[in-house]
Amino acid sequence: MRTVGVDLGGTKCLAVALEAGNVVDERRVPTPVGETALLDALAGVATAVAGATDVVGVGIGVPGLVDRGGVLRFAPNLPGVVDLDIKAELERRLGGPVRVDNDATCAAWGERQVGAAQGYDDVILVTLGTGIGGGIVAGGALLRGANGFAGEIGHMVVDPDGPDCPCGQRGCWERFASGGGLGRLGQRAAAEGRAGHVLALAGGDPALVRGEHVTAAAAEGDVEAHAVLADLAWWVALGLANLANAFDPQAFVLGGGLVEAGDVLLGPVRTAFADLLTGASYRPEIAIVPATLGEHAGAIGAACLFST
Amino acid sequence: MRTVGVDLGGTKCLAVALEAGNVVDERRVPTPVGETALLDALAGVATAVAGATDVVGVGIGVPGLVDRGGVLRFAPNLPGVVDLDIKAELERRLGGPVRVDNDATCAAWGERQVGAAQGYDDVILVTLGTGIGGGIVAGGALLRGANGFAGEIGHMVVDPDGPDCPCGQRGCWERFASGGGLGRLGQRAAAEGRAGHVLALAGGDPALVRGEHVTAAAAEGDVEAHAVLADLAWWVALGLANLANAFDPQAFVLGGGLVEAGDVLLGPVRTAFADLLTGASYRPEIAIVPATLGEHAGAIGAACLFST
Repeated sequence: MRTVGVDLGGTKCLAVALEAGNVVDERRVPTPVGETALLDALAGVATAVAGATDVVGVGIGVPGLVDRGGVLRFAPNLPGVVDLDIKAELERRLGGPVRVDNDATCAAWGERQVGAAQGYDDVILVTLGTGIGGGIVAGGALLRGANGFAGEIGHMVVDPDGPDCPCGQRGCWERFASGGGLGRLGQRAAAEGRAGHVLALAGGDPALVRGEHVTAAAAEGDVEAHAVLADLAWWVALGLANLANAFDPQAFVLGGGLVEAGDVLLGPVRTAFADLLTGASYRPEIAIVPATLGEHAGAIGAACLFST
Repeated sequence: MRTVGVDLGGTKCLAVALEAGNVVDERRVPTPVGETALLDALAGVATAVAGATDVVGVGIGVPGLVDRGGVLRFAPNLPGVVDLDIKAELERRLGGPVRVDNDATCAAWGERQVGAAQGYDDVILVTLGTGIGGGIVAGGALLRGANGFAGEIGHMVVDPDGPDCPCGQRGCWERFASGGGLGRLGQRAAAEGRAGHVLALAGGDPALVRGEHVTAAAAEGDVEAHAVLADLAWWVALGLANLANAFDPQAFVLGGGLVEAGDVLLGPVRTAFADLLTGASYRPEIAIVPATLGEHAGAIGAACLFST
């Protein structure tokens, strides 16, 4: 029994074919500009991985607010795409059932069904990349909210005096606890003389420090870079504690580029989290584990929408 | 068909008997000190409102972390009460089924079943009192979390440089958006010469300004007091926007003492909320309405635990 999942990103569409939880084929194509070209590309790549097999259905993970009818309402990373009825348009093109959901929601479901979140009925996936995405599983099912827009946790304001966010607010969690946030922390440390090796990797200009310079220096064992990562870990933990207070999950699964740093980051996150959670000593421990599906999580999860 | 609900508070226990959604009897007793005395008081007041009628069951709303087995794990407002198996102890005393849940969770369920949240399947009750309590309904059911501890939204950190919170963190939402938070905003305004009438009501000492002075002055039409309420409303809205981004509810029901101020507070909350919510223009409007069950919400909701 084959299902197909496509992860629509700002630059590429990644499609997988899934059989018994295993990826049996994958393809990727650039994300074209324009609604018709986009729909044609999604249909094309889905058909390609479906192959000659009868597929149960095609799931699509989309970056933005997707309503429960499969209409993409708002997608800041897909210029010109507004109120696009992806479900109806793809069902017409593909002649079979299509389900559409937010990409982070798909990734959470993928990790829950075949990845790091297996066995957890109450678990939150947090994707720490350029921004922060979230997907929430509560009571064994995806929590989609009234409109399908649940899980926009990156825009939880954690410091009203914090840096501006493209969303229009100030001090959103993703300004601090993302790859961009790490770059900002690294720039400040470099400007204040607390990150010599990081600064050298960035060519000597504090303004050019990016998150990658910090993680690279930390991987080399640089103590100052580790201190910057500990700052980042504190901000990650702060948002996790806020979510734990609200949702009471068994576990967090952390994905995205930042998590490739491994226990260098996750260790300090766990320590800070235990310190920040209300009534921590009265609760069972909440696991904080790395995602295992990597860049395939969204596509695999989209395919798994047919195993809900 | 009669059910009984008891709201266990720090100072009193309020019990109601509910028939077809209507309160047909109520009693209150002081909350005694000590676990045995507490259990006896709960059993006594529940028996009193049950009367000669056969009751379906007795629900208990408790301030603190209650696990899904009905054990009160952590209750900062009930000194000396730790790991108390309220469900088992009361079932032994009463000889019938008992359900125990967090008081704010009960209040949310009460509003959902017979109060302001009727008709909403995705709705969050926020109680703005001395602190902030929360109860979450998702997909038509209570969201309890893995352990029953969900909804501790008052301890969402919204400003890491904010005032200390008794929970051990800094800048919890309830430090800003509660009755205590209003007092703090009023004190600052008075000290800065922005709240003359409020200061007069407090006897001329800025340090003595409490939330009640601000709401009283606002009720008299004092412009400066309204400005302080607008500050409070912004902090309320900030937390609501964070919750809306995560949960995507249809509505918020606001309860607690502060909401008695009415549209003087709710109007500015609605305005600030629309401004703070990510992608607000792409979403259906999220209603922000006052609770209708008042101080009975917890007890009524506890009784409604038998209509889940």
